[in-house]
Amino acid sequence: MRVVVIVGGVGGARFLLGVKTALGLPAIGEGAAPHEITAIVNNGDDVWLHGLRICPDLDTCMYTLGGGIDTERGWGRVGETWVVKDELAAYGADPDWFGLGDKDIATHLIRTRMLRAGYPLSAVTEALCDRWRPGVRLLPTTDDRVETHVVVDDPDSGERRAIHFQEWWVRHHAALPAHSIVAVGAEEANPAPGVAEAITDADVVLLAPSNPVVSIGTVLAVPGVRTALAKTEARVVGVSPIVQDRPVRGMADACLAAIGVATTAEAVGRHYGARPDGLLDGWLVHTTDSAEVPGVRVRAVPLLMSSVDATADMARAAFDLAGVSVE
Amino acid sequence: MRVVVIVGGVGGARFLLGVKTALGLPAIGEGAAPHEITAIVNNGDDVWLHGLRICPDLDTCMYTLGGGIDTERGWGRVGETWVVKDELAAYGADPDWFGLGDKDIATHLIRTRMLRAGYPLSAVTEALCDRWRPGVRLLPTTDDRVETHVVVDDPDSGERRAIHFQEWWVRHHAALPAHSIVAVGAEEANPAPGVAEAITDADVVLLAPSNPVVSIGTVLAVPGVRTALAKTEARVVGVSPIVQDRPVRGMADACLAAIGVATTAEAVGRHYGARPDGLLDGWLVHTTDSAEVPGVRVRAVPLLMSSVDATADMARAAFDLAGVSVE
Repeated sequence: MRVVVIVGGVGGARFLLGVKTALGLPAIGEGAAPHEITAIVNNGDDVWLHGLRICPDLDTCMYTLGGGIDTERGWGRVGETWVVKDELAAYGADPDWFGLGDKDIATHLIRTRMLRAGYPLSAVTEALCDRWRPGVRLLPTTDDRVETHVVVDDPDSGERRAIHFQEWWVRHHAALPAHSIVAVGAEEANPAPGVAEAITDADVVLLAPSNPVVSIGTVLAVPGVRTALAKTEARVVGVSPIVQDRPVRGMADACLAAIGVATTAEAVGRHYGARPDGLLDGWLVHTTDSAEVPGVRVRAVPLLMSSVDATADMARAAFDLAGVSVE
Repeated sequence: MRVVVIVGGVGGARFLLGVKTALGLPAIGEGAAPHEITAIVNNGDDVWLHGLRICPDLDTCMYTLGGGIDTERGWGRVGETWVVKDELAAYGADPDWFGLGDKDIATHLIRTRMLRAGYPLSAVTEALCDRWRPGVRLLPTTDDRVETHVVVDDPDSGERRAIHFQEWWVRHHAALPAHSIVAVGAEEANPAPGVAEAITDADVVLLAPSNPVVSIGTVLAVPGVRTALAKTEARVVGVSPIVQDRPVRGMADACLAAIGVATTAEAVGRHYGARPDGLLDGWLVHTTDSAEVPGVRVRAVPLLMSSVDATADMARAAFDLAGVSVE
């Protein structure tokens, strides 16, 4: 079976552990199974910092599936150290609010060097995965530059201006009200090699319980991705990241507010909408929630990703709702 | 008094500690003194590694004079860690033979980012020295790209080819016989801002006991530096890096062999030669050595740099030989 999962960072990576398990693959690393998983990963959080190209969602997926993630924090490397970051601060180098670990920096150095040598991000990601063996084909949504910017009132000057998503998310903890959120470059971006084909040829497409605006939303902002989703004969099933009117993790409520969508499983399901105009054939919500999304089959199952097994059950429910069998 | 010192890395940096001390400045850091020291630092060891621009001699001088050097090793930062290097090796990234420490990497990140933004190396060096306060004006010889390459027989293929100095020095420990040593780019390079003026306006110019070929020789390979040395009314005094027919430190013998100069204090003095066609007015050799260099005043004093005080005595002897008073 060919499975496509559209994902962001921490939540998406954890969901992929469950998808692998549900398909009989080891959660961490590679394994033999008659199934092929392609993860289409959000690029919108990518950022240049200190001359390094950083792709947080790709790295979170790669480290999580390859066994290198700090499972407590959910991002970055286990056993990480922060010597370079402290030294950069001693130089007074801006910005100082981004968690740039030493182990992580090695990844960024290799990526930056390859990008500067002319390799596209998809090829760089493949090269990095030579080490991590995630057991999932990790594809960036696009090799073009797409960056999520957030329009806010500057806390110092009061002037309205756009800042990089990372500055809003990491530095300001999404506490500055967002007037709007823009995936800069998305309209002109092409899907990375393999992305459109993976969707078109898929047996099932899942939307991970990632941030509907800045993760899933940014992937979908690339026109070729939407075109492929409209064309595919696979069923598309989404998993709600909102449980009991709150994000399971992260600050999706601040993002949803910016686009005028309520922080409820139903509102997000309606925001995605039913095919063919929208995205969904099926929509999984948490057992305590209910949702009516016209034209979409909704089912309620536990959605808390409290363990890999619990997450595998979510994936199985999604496959079931899509009408595909993984036996 | 305006003092110019032409230097390489470890030996040059240690010599500068003595020059500062002889002039009444603290060896480490800044201090008030009616003297101005300009160090013109070799660029030929500079190298791109893992996408980072590394300037070993500038950094060795900066860290040594700013109190950040590993004094045991002579290069790199005290209390250094090697997390990034180990991670790069885990990715199989080449090269793996260069000692790229975590603290050091912060310096290289800032330098690389500034260079890519268009700042010349001299401006980058000044910015880095804002933190280190070396008490000496550290100038790269040139803002242009000059790199020392070494022509060797490839140990695998046997073919004659040119490799970067660092590959020869660090990877092969200068054990591959060098057919020739070339300062690539030097002929077309201009001195960095301030370099020619510092030499022309100096009261005395010292050549540190650095490698005569790949440190001092590379500085002198930039035509504007030689022109300024020919023009200056300052006396030029060199300090022999060869004591009892051996380099005090490093592998200068391998470099001297490549240019057909014997590893003796006299041969190096003659290689530098007497002004106006050559460089020297005075030549300091170690007490156990003797040298006759036509047209050059030679004096024998202890030259071992075993302590800052001993090194300050060397600097005083150099000033004395130049006929300048530092009282």
